[in-house]
Order: sequence, then structure tokens, then C-alpha cells
Amino acid sequence: MYNKITEQDINILKEISGENNVLWGDQINHDYSHDELGGIEKMPDVLVRVHSTEEVSLIMKHAYERTIPVTVRGSGTGLVGAAVAVEGGIMLETTQMNKILELDTQTLTVTVQPGVLLMELAAFCEENDFLYPPDPGEKSATIGGNISTNAGGMRAVKYGVTRDYVRQLTVVMPDGEIMVLGGKVAKNSSGYSLKDLVIGSEGTLCIITEAVLKLVPLPKYSISLLVPFKDMKTAIEAVPKIIRSKVIPTAIEYMSRDTILFSESYLGKKFPDSKNDAYILLTFDGNTDEQVQTDLKTVADLCLNELGALDAYIVDTEERKKAVWSARGAFLEAIKASTTEMDECDVVVPGNKVDEFIKYTHLLAKELNVRIPSFGHAGDGNLHVYICRDNLNDEQWQKTLDKCFELMYEKAQNLGGLVSGEHGIGYAKKQYLKKQYGETHIALMQGIKKVFDKKNILNPQKVCF
Amino acid sequence: MYNKITEQDINILKEISGENNVLWGDQINHDYSHDELGGIEKMPDVLVRVHSTEEVSLIMKHAYERTIPVTVRGSGTGLVGAAVAVEGGIMLETTQMNKILELDTQTLTVTVQPGVLLMELAAFCEENDFLYPPDPGEKSATIGGNISTNAGGMRAVKYGVTRDYVRQLTVVMPDGEIMVLGGKVAKNSSGYSLKDLVIGSEGTLCIITEAVLKLVPLPKYSISLLVPFKDMKTAIEAVPKIIRSKVIPTAIEYMSRDTILFSESYLGKKFPDSKNDAYILLTFDGNTDEQVQTDLKTVADLCLNELGALDAYIVDTEERKKAVWSARGAFLEAIKASTTEMDECDVVVPGNKVDEFIKYTHLLAKELNVRIPSFGHAGDGNLHVYICRDNLNDEQWQKTLDKCFELMYEKAQNLGGLVSGEHGIGYAKKQYLKKQYGETHIALMQGIKKVFDKKNILNPQKVCF
Repeated sequence: MYNKITEQDINILKEISGENNVLWGDQINHDYSHDELGGIEKMPDVLVRVHSTEEVSLIMKHAYERTIPVTVRGSGTGLVGAAVAVEGGIMLETTQMNKILELDTQTLTVTVQPGVLLMELAAFCEENDFLYPPDPGEKSATIGGNISTNAGGMRAVKYGVTRDYVRQLTVVMPDGEIMVLGGKVAKNSSGYSLKDLVIGSEGTLCIITEAVLKLVPLPKYSISLLVPFKDMKTAIEAVPKIIRSKVIPTAIEYMSRDTILFSESYLGKKFPDSKNDAYILLTFDGNTDEQVQTDLKTVADLCLNELGALDAYIVDTEERKKAVWSARGAFLEAIKASTTEMDECDVVVPGNKVDEFIKYTHLLAKELNVRIPSFGHAGDGNLHVYICRDNLNDEQWQKTLDKCFELMYEKAQNLGGLVSGEHGIGYAKKQYLKKQYGETHIALMQGIKKVFDKKNILNPQKVCF
Repeated sequence: MYNKITEQDINILKEISGENNVLWGDQINHDYSHDELGGIEKMPDVLVRVHSTEEVSLIMKHAYERTIPVTVRGSGTGLVGAAVAVEGGIMLETTQMNKILELDTQTLTVTVQPGVLLMELAAFCEENDFLYPPDPGEKSATIGGNISTNAGGMRAVKYGVTRDYVRQLTVVMPDGEIMVLGGKVAKNSSGYSLKDLVIGSEGTLCIITEAVLKLVPLPKYSISLLVPFKDMKTAIEAVPKIIRSKVIPTAIEYMSRDTILFSESYLGKKFPDSKNDAYILLTFDGNTDEQVQTDLKTVADLCLNELGALDAYIVDTEERKKAVWSARGAFLEAIKASTTEMDECDVVVPGNKVDEFIKYTHLLAKELNVRIPSFGHAGDGNLHVYICRDNLNDEQWQKTLDKCFELMYEKAQNLGGLVSGEHGIGYAKKQYLKKQYGETHIALMQGIKKVFDKKNILNPQKVCF
């Protein structure tokens, strides 16, 4: 159904993108065959490092004419195989499109190319006294990837997710046409929101080549609070009560003792406290020191006096901040380092079902005799649950993994949850999305995919196909 | 192409919805032929007052089988003819689906039927110490209508628009199938966001029969500030500087002297000040009196000392609050009462282009010899510009209106703006949307419409057709 890449194709790509930016066959590093988790593997036939919207447009015109599949890849930090070229063909790598094009202090927006890294964007905004609120743990992800998965991150409790900060997208359609979706405007009721359809579509509808993002003024003060509890239930039940207190923390993360211990051993650094079973870590930001201190005190008192907290550590010194947040940032890597292989379940459940879901994973771990550490965003119900292979053989591992996923997604669905809170569906989670959504829902998505990409050349076999 | 309603159809509808809820022919009040502005007129053949999702599903099954067009109407407060049954057929009125079904204080959500009025929802939330932030001026609009237009309102500066508060939608598809889109969850990366596609689709893709909305804790304190300026340019230029000061007001409205005078004469009540040419009205909310007072003082000082404000009236007494906000709430009605007929331009432009656009409307008013009063949301660039017929004859009116719209939408586009900030496209603004977006963009929308509604029976001829 797709045409194979020929020498002529490669020559045309070289003409478009320059000799040095086109690699094929053995020239392509094996890293391009997989993403961060590595469960899905396939080498692209040709890798093109793109630099501009116009270049992407020319490549797509050619790929469309020749019916060659095209997969876009940013930093490759995904966990569901979305950026793996499962049908081979052309891989467009966007990391060279890494310019911050404009900071507009009047509309409070920043215009970026898709290959800008989250950490670069964060630093740029901070230098200019602004904040781009979405804050996924993986700081070396590209903003293009973040938009393509509607990434969430830690500040969702107060600030929302990536979708809430995308004002305008410049995209290249599968046939090479360049389109602008949305605008540098704060409101929009001008027809179906194609922009919102593209956000979270994991590179299957069109290619994002520029984005206008909304910023907020950088809050002047920020402080964290680490609160230990006797068990996860008590910790998690505290969360909606904290929000009801009218203090809206920027972030509410939960973590278990195991996860902290992995991280201590991975980083070789001590966490401020690791003797208790469950912790929540809260951050507060604001524009006056008094306000932030008042918020912190309100929540600390509430936790200690009414919600069963065992202590409340203020994370205010630079040293303590670093200890806590570097541990939090290393959880994924730390768990990965603790086992031979792992896979992830990124469910999101209603905020009041987090405890029930986590307890279920503990039960499952016992029943299936497998380690299932987890951490995640208590404030927004988005959990990151890891199934660890440890010393299982191939057959046992596949069986255990399938069983675990099947039961966990079923449980999440029964609790009113969804398959993915922020990591997307990609290739690895398609079957679970199909199971949850059912025929009509998937058929609508497939129909939309066909409207955008009638030759099915953009990131084929992903999300709903 | 569509079948005409027969006696048998009416009998089937009566069986589904009950004798008393089905009206046809002369039994239907003429109000159902138009919306608030009344420019588009057409009577439906039959009007059904629906009460449940299941009932809507049964009606749609029948309409689908028989290929009868169906138009959904809430309170009919729209301004672009979106709820007018331009092809006749069945009109479903949702105002009887007016139950607030659940307040979930753990997930901070409220579940409502689509016919709940904004003012009912606001009162309910306030009684329970919550806030549903979107705050369109028209309080007797239904929440279903608000979702269908992605209504914005006055609090968008701080809180965003309707889209940002819709967690889950229960919808009935054109063939009667009931679907649930989204979830009672704070994050979602589970495939294309059909929920976000339906938000703002003006009843053309499916029928919203239930919605789960996100709430925030009710801020304890709220205060407004009315600031007069010597002219609109100075007033509007103050806005991004206010936002940069790190104080994020809940609302920033602008108003001109004319509009205030209309309102004074319409309400028979004095506005606190009407001697200056331009005003901005700001609101601040927060959880401590000190915080709100600090915010207010920061902005008042900034306006007076650096931004050229002529004064700064604190709107804190109940009497003054009522005077100011009842005037603001009455602007549309007051302008309407000042003329024989009018039509509206609801453009949204980047925040720093508001002044330029308003000045252009003044120029246009002079050139075309027509009154064009305006007011709107300075904080988010969404303007409500009214072209007044006054004593023009039919031919002059149509000519002036067409010319005005053509030039204003062109100007907005040149400034990076879009056709509609919050009122939608409906029937009246289709041509301007088409002109701005161009063929491919409209073809994508039409393609999506066909995926959802292959027989094109839901609200035909709207938005993109």
C-alpha cells in the first residue's frame, strides 16, 4: 500500500533539506527505532532533520505524491511508541527547529518552533519574568511533542494542561499545504476548533511547525511542603479537602516510600524523610511572600490538625528544594534503573478515586507476583504506574504485562477514568483505547483521520488505527 | 432532500415525548422562528420540549430514519441565527432539561442538564460556596447553548472560557446513539478530543444532553475598580501593562461614554461617572481582603501614576456595584433600544490591537454615516460592535450592513483576529468565516461534519455549510 523509498526519493529529500540533513540505512542511529520505553521498535528508511515550515511542506508534497509514510519525532521521550516509524518510510526529526521566534509582552504570548525543549522554554520565560505553566516531568521533551500529546505535568491542579496554553498552531497538512489554526487571541468561537483536534493527536493529522503559547506573569514566590502520612489512603483523601480550603496549590504530587527509596539509591542522595509509607508534596506560588506563607500555613495546619498528617516539612532552603525536586524528577529513571524492563500505565481517574486505584495496583502486584511501583499527580488524578519485569522470562513477562494492563485499564474505566492522562495512546495503548471507547467512538476518530489524511501517510497505525 | 413532517411523524413524536410536549403549525409561538437579534427567520414544522437523553435519542432515531432536519434550541439568546430551523423540520427545545443533577465536592464538578440557565447555575454554585467561572453577559442563556458556542464572558482574563470548564459531555448522535465524551477527570490524552470538537460546534455535530463542569472554590472577596481615561487609546493601552504588573484581574471591560449614556437612558439610572470619553472596569477576586485590596491598590496606583488615568473609583458599596454592573449588563439591550434594528460583529483580536480596531470602527461610522457603538472585553480582545439601522430604509440598511461587516472582518483579519470571539458563526456569519479561513479549512470542517452527521440532518446550513 505504501511505496518503498527509492534512491530518487532520497535525492529529492537531499535537494529539499540539504545533503547533511538526510540520513538513510545504516547511517541512522539505532536510537531512532524506539522511544524512551523502547517496547516498540522499527527503523525508519530515511531520517530528515528539518529546519523550517516550508521545508516540511515540500517534503510532505513529495511524500503525498509518492504515498510514503512519514513519522515526526521530537526528542523521542515518549512512552507509547507514538514517534516510532512502524511502517518505515520517512522520519522527520524536529529538534533543529529549536528557535524561540518571538516574545510578545503585549499579548503575553511566546512563538516557538516545535523542537524547542521544555527546559529551554522554561529558562527563556523565567529570564523574561514569565511562566509557561505546563510542567511535565520530562524537561528534555520538545514543545511539539508536548502539544501532540496534550501533555499535563505537575502544575495542572492550578494551571491546567498544555491545551489550555496553545493559542495558535502553524501546521503542514499531509499533502504539504500550510495552515494556521487558531490565533493570537484569547477567545475563539469561529467554527469547529481544529486547533483543539490537533492538540493531542500525536502527529497523525498534520505536522506542527510553529506554536503560539500563552504565558502568565512569573509568580514572585514559590514554596513547597512535604507531608508524610501513615498510609496512601489518608494521604490521597487529604487532597480534595485541601482544595476545598480555597488554597489552590500549584502542584500536589503523591509518592510512596518504595519510590523514594529507589530514587535515593538511584541518585545516591537522601530525601528529607523516608520513614513513612506515603507522602504528598505540595507547591504554592504567588506574588507576595505573605500570600504564599499564608497558603502554606493554612494547608500545613489543615493537614496536621484535621487530615491525619504525621508531620509537615517546609521545603524552603535551596538545598532541601533540590533534594526533593531532583528526587521527584528522577522517579521514572529510578524505577527504570531498579528493573530489567518496564512498561507504564498512565491512567487518569476522578480525583476521589486515586486511593482506590492505587490500592488495586497493590492487590494486583501481590496476586500476579510482580512489582508495581507508582507515583503521580494526586491533585489531578493522573497516575504513573510501572510494571517491572525484574527476572521474568519473555513468556512470563508478556503474559504478566497483558494481564496487568487489561485489569488496570478495566479498573480505571470502572472508576470513571480514561486510558491516558498525559502520555497519549501511540501504538502501545491502542487496544485499550478501543476497548474503552467502543466502535462508534473509534469510528469517529478514524473518520476524522481520513478527513485530514486520506492517504493515511502521517504516522500510520497510531491512536485509532 | 429532506422529508416533510407528516401526521404520522407527529404521532410518533407525541408517543415519545407526550402529547403536551409536541406543538406544530400555528400552535408554535412565533418566537421560535428567530433568536435574540432576529435577523434570520424561519418557523420549525414541529416543536418538541424534551426532558431526557433517552427521549432525545428516540427522536433522533426517528428523524434519522426519516431524514428530517433537527435544530436544537435553548433559550434562544443567540445572535447569529444558530438556533433557527432554517430548513424547518423538528425543533428540540431543551429548557425543560433544567436539572442540576449532582454536585461532587470531591472532584469539584457539577453535573447539569443542558437547559439549566447560567443564572441558575451561578446561584446554585454560590450557595454551595463554589464558582463556575465562565460569565457571559446573557445570564438567561442555557449552559447547553454556552457549550455549543464556547461562550467566553467577562472573567476570561483570569479564568478562561467555557471550553476550559467542560470535563465531560453526554451527547446524542444524529442516528440516536448516546455517547459520553471526556470524563470526570482533570487530564486527558486518550485519542482525539471529540469533546473539544463538540464544544463550539453550535449543535451541528450532535446534541448535548448532559455536561460535567469543573468548578473552583468561590473566592471570598471581590471588588471592582472603574477607571476613566481621556480617550480609548490610553484606556486600552493600559490593559497589558496592568496584566504585566502581576495582578491578574478577574475581568477588564472597556466602555465608551456613548454606551454608558445609552445605558443610563435605558435603565433610567445614573452611572457613577459619565463625563469622560473612555473607561475600563476591572474586577479583582481573592480569598483574603488584604490580597484583594493590595491588587486593587497596585492597579489603581499604576493607572493613576503611569498609565494616564483621570481617576479611579472603587466600586465597593452594594449601591455602586449595582449601578455599575447593571449598566454593564444592560449595554446590549440599551443599544438595541436606541435604534430600530441592529446587527453585531463579535470579533476577537490580539489584546494589543483592540485600540486600533475600535478606532477603525469610528472611522467607518463617519465614512458610512452610520452609528457603530461598541463595548467589550478589553482584557481578552473580544469586542462587541453594533451597527445601528436607525432610520435607514431596507436597501440602505442592507448595503451599509454588508459593507460594514465586510470591512470590519477584513480589518480584524489583518490585525490577526478571528470572526467570532464568543457568539459563534451560526447562519449569519458563515460567509465571513469562509472568507477568512479559505477552502481547505472549511473543507476540513465540512468533512468532520459529514463524519458525525452523514445525512446532514442536525442543524443544517450552519457554521461551515
